[in-house]
Amino acid sequence: MDLDRATIERLVEQITKEVLILLREEEASAQSGSECLSCNGQCTGKCPDRTQAVIDAGASRIGNPLGSTSVAVEIAHMIDHTLLKADASQEQIAQLCYEARKHGFAAVCVNPANVKLAAQLLKGSPVAVCAVVGFPLGATPPEVKSYEAQQAIEDGATEIDMVINVGALKSRDYELVERDIATVTRTCHHNRAICKVIIEAALLTDEEKVKACQLAKAAGADYVKTSTGFGPGGATVEDVALMRRVVGPEMGIKAAGGIRTFEAVKQLVKAGATRIGASAGVKILQEARAAA
Amino acid sequence: MDLDRATIERLVEQITKEVLILLREEEASAQSGSECLSCNGQCTGKCPDRTQAVIDAGASRIGNPLGSTSVAVEIAHMIDHTLLKADASQEQIAQLCYEARKHGFAAVCVNPANVKLAAQLLKGSPVAVCAVVGFPLGATPPEVKSYEAQQAIEDGATEIDMVINVGALKSRDYELVERDIATVTRTCHHNRAICKVIIEAALLTDEEKVKACQLAKAAGADYVKTSTGFGPGGATVEDVALMRRVVGPEMGIKAAGGIRTFEAVKQLVKAGATRIGASAGVKILQEARAAA
Repeated sequence: MDLDRATIERLVEQITKEVLILLREEEASAQSGSECLSCNGQCTGKCPDRTQAVIDAGASRIGNPLGSTSVAVEIAHMIDHTLLKADASQEQIAQLCYEARKHGFAAVCVNPANVKLAAQLLKGSPVAVCAVVGFPLGATPPEVKSYEAQQAIEDGATEIDMVINVGALKSRDYELVERDIATVTRTCHHNRAICKVIIEAALLTDEEKVKACQLAKAAGADYVKTSTGFGPGGATVEDVALMRRVVGPEMGIKAAGGIRTFEAVKQLVKAGATRIGASAGVKILQEARAAA
Repeated sequence: MDLDRATIERLVEQITKEVLILLREEEASAQSGSECLSCNGQCTGKCPDRTQAVIDAGASRIGNPLGSTSVAVEIAHMIDHTLLKADASQEQIAQLCYEARKHGFAAVCVNPANVKLAAQLLKGSPVAVCAVVGFPLGATPPEVKSYEAQQAIEDGATEIDMVINVGALKSRDYELVERDIATVTRTCHHNRAICKVIIEAALLTDEEKVKACQLAKAAGADYVKTSTGFGPGGATVEDVALMRRVVGPEMGIKAAGGIRTFEAVKQLVKAGATRIGASAGVKILQEARAAA
């Protein structure tokens, strides 16, 4: 799924121009007192160890911005810029990567078939490539999810968002649900990738949400994630708060599905989210800048 | 994902009772002049070689039923009894298999995670197990779809419904689309399974529908299939007619997505469909019997 030479050259040219903008934004961020200097701001969304600090400090800062550049950069570093539609073209994936570089998003989140192209376009940038696995139904066996994750990592992904086996959870086959998560997590960690576990909260009772989070934690995953964006509902503040209560401060929480405003991001971060999955990232950043 | 002993025993008991009903239906079918005696009626939906005969003879017979039992049996043999929801429980899969045996459906169509259970419950019956692959987005690489198909076949599937790489088609990367289909088809045929190719027509222009069908035919697939049931639209008479014009009489056509009535089935078969994917199969059969 390679782009033709002309398109690549055009993208390289665009990206080269935009690097200056990115560098200026990062310099401005450093000067404005961001606490993420040591890792170029990427830690906000990526380090589970820093989750509680982010909730306590970052969320209040996002809620009460000190300055537009600082807040926008901080929010950008939490966003997985997402395009998972079945009919996403190679041009659209290229556009997604271009925007992710330009705005300094944490990652692009794409389907496995688009990982190779995204990794090629984001080579040398701090933007990670995140691939979804067993997506969006979660109804493939552990070994298939693991193989899919392995291939995506070989293609250039460093983050894997896997969907749990919802049917097995509904059937109270907890051994299978945990084995499913543990198998993929093992593949990820063996390859220095992180594993986020999508529980598809809108399909679950509160009791099942709790169980899913407990199993993800027991399986050693790095994050729990609310939704695929293809289910009957997206991220809610209530679900994020519940998930934070269950997993404690050690794990990351990714809120995803239907997040389209800066206001929604603020509420979700306040409730405990440390990463935001959204296709509306550019619009959210614009609102963040305007609000400051 | 095994059922507990009590559930299995209850299912075996139910199935044993229903075998008598099934046998009586088949005997009635033989006496009413069905043309499918040599293969127990299964050929109607399964043999691409017989597609044209089915369209010419079967469709008109379904349109003008000779008798309720004959028509109901014939329609049942065209139906892939389908349950693909993310939260389908093991009990619901068991119920699906029970109904498929009872009514003599061509196959059950399930997600890969449920194939082993379905194959276990349908062992010794003429009902095939059909697994969806790369479903429903079609956005995994060829080797992942092939691995997923191989695993499903090892778990007991004899039919694979794969989704094309829609994004690659939109990007006019026809080499990738065909290689994707050919890779899965080869895996299927190597294991004596059949391969159906879901083009997700509702996402495509007519030109793209034609191209998708041509590529599926060139790749050696057995069927083209209209829809996943998870896209923005389901099977239409116009799409089936277009697909039949493109693939000619040699290939099977599976209409799927939103098919809920006997009337719809008749129209789709008349347009060229040789298999029907539906979750409403039992209701459709009831209507077929009532209409006679």
